Amino acid sequence: MRLRNKPWAREKIEAHPQYIIPEPEKAKGRWHEVFGNHNPIHIEVGTGKGQFVTGMAKQNPDINYIGIELYESVIITALDRLIEADLPNLKLLNVDGADLLHYFEKGEVGRVYLNFSDPWPKTRHAKRRLTYKSFLNLYESLMPEGGEVHFKTDNQGLFEYSLKSFSEYGMLLTFVSLDLHNSGFEGNVMTEYEEKFSAIGQRIYRSEAKFQPRT
Amino acid sequence: MRLRNKPWAREKIEAHPQYIIPEPEKAKGRWHEVFGNHNPIHIEVGTGKGQFVTGMAKQNPDINYIGIELYESVIITALDRLIEADLPNLKLLNVDGADLLHYFEKGEVGRVYLNFSDPWPKTRHAKRRLTYKSFLNLYESLMPEGGEVHFKTDNQGLFEYSLKSFSEYGMLLTFVSLDLHNSGFEGNVMTEYEEKFSAIGQRIYRSEAKFQPRT
Ligand SMILES: C[S@@+](CC[C@H](N)C(=O)[O-])C[C@H]1O[C@@H](n2cnc3c(N)ncnc32)[C@H](O)[C@@H]1O
Ligand SMILES: C[S@@+](CC[C@H](N)C(=O)[O-])C[C@H]1O[C@@H](n2cnc3c(N)ncnc32)[C@H](O)[C@@H]1O
Repeated sequence: MRLRNKPWAREKIEAHPQYIIPEPEKAKGRWHEVFGNHNPIHIEVGTGKGQFVTGMAKQNPDINYIGIELYESVIITALDRLIEADLPNLKLLNVDGADLLHYFEKGEVGRVYLNFSDPWPKTRHAKRRLTYKSFLNLYESLMPEGGEVHFKTDNQGLFEYSLKSFSEYGMLLTFVSLDLHNSGFEGNVMTEYEEKFSAIGQRIYRSEAKFQPRT
Repeated sequence: MRLRNKPWAREKIEAHPQYIIPEPEKAKGRWHEVFGNHNPIHIEVGTGKGQFVTGMAKQNPDINYIGIELYESVIITALDRLIEADLPNLKLLNVDGADLLHYFEKGEVGRVYLNFSDPWPKTRHAKRRLTYKSFLNLYESLMPEGGEVHFKTDNQGLFEYSLKSFSEYGMLLTFVSLDLHNSGFEGNVMTEYEEKFSAIGQRIYRSEAKFQPRT
């Protein structure tokens, strides 16, 4: 689903096909051609205004990043950042994370990042959380065995839920921080939400969880 | 190992064999005789001054509790509490938690509680943490399949470590609270340390982790 509520946003997106990939279903199975190399591809689902993926792409030139954001009105800010930074190892996708199987083959994605995902606090909306089991199944389908999901949030309820969800899915928790900014963790790249919430004293939670071989 | 640094403590313990079981290796495999019923047996390792086990035994008369504490000088306070409350479903053991296999048969313990366990913050002391894999293996050896470890602490580092340790051991996380006292959790029985640390504004962390069938 692409929201077309702001025609100027759509026009701007279409004017930059080298940054926001049009018809990404055609790139499925050949992302290494899009990037022009065989470096690992890490994706962020719900990339928002793109501060995290842009920072990561600068920090790690040997990794290719793809920021995935549903809303045109949001992704154009990420586009502005990318135009400014002109990074060869970063692309954006204006698609729904729920449709990732349309755009990537099994094994094509090396890692999934989730940052400050919408918490959907009501139990009846649990299925919409990006750490719900159907999404974990989706991420697993994109990655080789041992693929990892790296997750940050300030939302206590979502973090509690997600740790249980990773565990229930059979994933291995390899990293847990209950206060990232006071943990000595190095190389952290802040997201927009992370800056906003840590500035008002919210703790930042972070985890890494790894898919396990199926027996 | 029983520390005999305070002879009066030892005397007091020996004067109450109905509460602090002497020669507990002899009770192995016949704890239901000790309690006079076949109710489930839940143990707390590192019970300290006994506020938690005493409270739990009052709250749940159909469950038998055993509080395990290494230090004579500490367990005598738990003994005082038990003398006062005179609960038929609570016993104390003045032994080392590392030796539990001497005192229980496989399946004899229904649940293990760990509360505010010593954090042993240095990595080189990780083996002493009561959530280290060798201890998890021990607890698993005492319980039937699906046995659970319920854990509370105010120590952020120990909680982070323990979540990873449970996961790495293959346990399923079924409950995680990152702020127990503001979570709406019902029926919580506070420990001495919990009262002390929550009073000075420390968050209380709580988890439940379940042993999984071995494949
Ligand atoms: C709370 S914001 C966080 C943005 C950014 N990751 C940060 O940390 O600052 C969540 C973002 O995820 C996007 N989003 C939510 N569900 C999505 C989905 N299914 N597919 C793609 N993007 C999604 C939202 O549009 C929003 O921009
Ligand atoms: C920090 S205190 C917490 C006491 C109580 N659980 C509470 O929450 O208030 C930890 C207790 O565990 C006991 N302990 C530590 N290691 C033990 C072991 N291996 N076996 C039995 N008790 C142990 C200590 O003697 C101490 O009383």
